[in-house]
Amino acid sequence: MSDVVNLTTMEVDALTDADGGLNLTDGHARLGLTAEQAAIVAGIPEMFAQASCRPFQDIEREAHTAFLHAVGQYSAPIGTGRIFSCYSSTLATDIVARALPAGATIAVLHPTFDNIADLFTTRGLNLVPMSEQALMNKDWPGAPVSAIVVTHPNNPTGLVTPRGHLRSLAEHAARNGQTVIIDASFRGQVPDAQYDTYEVLEAAGADWIVIEDTGKLWPTHELKIGMLAFSERTRYPLYRAFSESLLAASPVVLRLVTELAGDWVAGGRERARDMVERNRAVVREAIEAVGLELADPVSQISVARIALPQDGPGSGELYRKLVAHGVHVLPCAPFHWADPKSGERFIRISLARPHDTVLKGAQKLAQAFAELSADEDALVA
Amino acid sequence: MSDVVNLTTMEVDALTDADGGLNLTDGHARLGLTAEQAAIVAGIPEMFAQASCRPFQDIEREAHTAFLHAVGQYSAPIGTGRIFSCYSSTLATDIVARALPAGATIAVLHPTFDNIADLFTTRGLNLVPMSEQALMNKDWPGAPVSAIVVTHPNNPTGLVTPRGHLRSLAEHAARNGQTVIIDASFRGQVPDAQYDTYEVLEAAGADWIVIEDTGKLWPTHELKIGMLAFSERTRYPLYRAFSESLLAASPVVLRLVTELAGDWVAGGRERARDMVERNRAVVREAIEAVGLELADPVSQISVARIALPQDGPGSGELYRKLVAHGVHVLPCAPFHWADPKSGERFIRISLARPHDTVLKGAQKLAQAFAELSADEDALVA
Repeated sequence: MSDVVNLTTMEVDALTDADGGLNLTDGHARLGLTAEQAAIVAGIPEMFAQASCRPFQDIEREAHTAFLHAVGQYSAPIGTGRIFSCYSSTLATDIVARALPAGATIAVLHPTFDNIADLFTTRGLNLVPMSEQALMNKDWPGAPVSAIVVTHPNNPTGLVTPRGHLRSLAEHAARNGQTVIIDASFRGQVPDAQYDTYEVLEAAGADWIVIEDTGKLWPTHELKIGMLAFSERTRYPLYRAFSESLLAASPVVLRLVTELAGDWVAGGRERARDMVERNRAVVREAIEAVGLELADPVSQISVARIALPQDGPGSGELYRKLVAHGVHVLPCAPFHWADPKSGERFIRISLARPHDTVLKGAQKLAQAFAELSADEDALVA
Repeated sequence: MSDVVNLTTMEVDALTDADGGLNLTDGHARLGLTAEQAAIVAGIPEMFAQASCRPFQDIEREAHTAFLHAVGQYSAPIGTGRIFSCYSSTLATDIVARALPAGATIAVLHPTFDNIADLFTTRGLNLVPMSEQALMNKDWPGAPVSAIVVTHPNNPTGLVTPRGHLRSLAEHAARNGQTVIIDASFRGQVPDAQYDTYEVLEAAGADWIVIEDTGKLWPTHELKIGMLAFSERTRYPLYRAFSESLLAASPVVLRLVTELAGDWVAGGRERARDMVERNRAVVREAIEAVGLELADPVSQISVARIALPQDGPGSGELYRKLVAHGVHVLPCAPFHWADPKSGERFIRISLARPHDTVLKGAQKLAQAFAELSADEDALVA
């Protein structure tokens, strides 16, 4: 299955490693359930029964309310018909890509998860990169860009678009007749990203589309919802694209989301954060021992980038050596979808894994780096 | 939400009817669980635990084996890496549509569920209709058609492509360098459609793609799997399209499929069939009382088409009158995607609903038809 290489195919390789290697690739939570989560999962058969006897609309509105309020989004258009529940945030992104007019030019944050750029490209859109530096400088693109796509917080860097920057972007877009598209899939993990995005976008009078995701927060084995929300101003045929893709998300999964969001605000958030930060700390410790550093030390998302020095082994080399030892991480060149070379000195490791898995993975990564560096030194000498 | 009308948007209207109307639109099973199914659903928390500790590949292969063998598909390429598990058969269809070269001409069965035609059209393919009559006459399309899409059994007519006809199609396609694409989403309900499709396609040396679906068999509230299988000969970039769409289906859902397939072969099949046929019988009885007939009396799928006489009220009129009374069925014009007028004299009603729901829906349909006919007669007189 190696006819293509994108980040997802590398994640599939890790997931299906027949020898049971260490999978530190994807950003999904692959963890045991906490006691509180296990109690909720034990209630799924009852959620099944409720899904048969309660109206779908009620179950869906309840889930939207519980989740969106749990991540600070009090102004989201709950109950207006302007939030579609999809099987995943990827499907939500594809629905947006399909609804935009083919041939249009859109600006997409760079770097970001390659799948976002791929989905828009496949639907016939012309992409131009917008760097994180440009975002932080409020250097917004003008014509012919008709939509601006921002991953908030960004994956893999963890960069949060500050409230004032989003306001500036939304005002710029409103002035120029552009659509602001926010992929907030990792928002749930990052308190700084939980200011009320919808309030900011609406106050600016912008045309906006926001994608939310329950899939990065909980170890629910792909039982998740991607939400596609949009403003009253949005004129793209989103409903047509949605109805081509699915009839409805699962009411059982919506019930599960409601319950897990309840746990999230009742301590689940802190339990998850402590676990991720403990894992980030062991990664930092393991790599510092061989002279490496975290590229984004203040990132709060459940993945970490490691910066490799310019004059040592590259991420491709390191990736291949680790795979040979059954350890799967992600080289970062594909995140830099418009300029892969600029990502070659970064490697990404997932933190939403059991502590021992992350510890072992980080140690093997450090060891592999040290060995490759020693080999290179020997060659030079 | 009425900016578009396709069959799915009418299904969404029914699903979200705030007044709690009768939903007899979509082909999903919306039923209470049998005792046997309820016992399986009670085990979902344990399936969750297994999903954490068993390799994904094992869980997936087990589900493919259980489901495909339960529906007679012993030659499906289980364990070869040539079956992708998707969130739904719709997503599987979209992955195929995306992998075919834009601008290619493909033949699609007519009538069939409009969503199939829409997904291919949206991805930039040129569609030509192939009638059921042409299929039964083995009148296969030649150049420039590069792929032939057959829904087997067909939705909404229930037409099964007989084994000899599939062999003829596959041999024709092999001779002409075409791809045979089979959407077998309703296969599980129809014993006649459960001959080993993969054996026939392989024996002919054809390039083939087959879509299977667990979503029409069981009342699992959208917890389902669409399987996308393909031949070794297939050269289209299906893996790239899959990896753009998802990382993996849910191992919890795969476990659920395994268990429900086990129940299916141990009596579940007969329980489901008896229920559907009992519902088909009450529909027949209710409509015969007002002079109407089933359009496909030998169909075994869980929907039934009702034929309306040429000189009475049409399906659009009947649909609107029923919606006004809170009863949702599907007018059939959209199934006739290349010639909607030819479908105007049919209306489709779902049978995979509780018996009382189907009974009430059929009676209201009969009554509405009688009233509309009387109105017309009065106008004429």
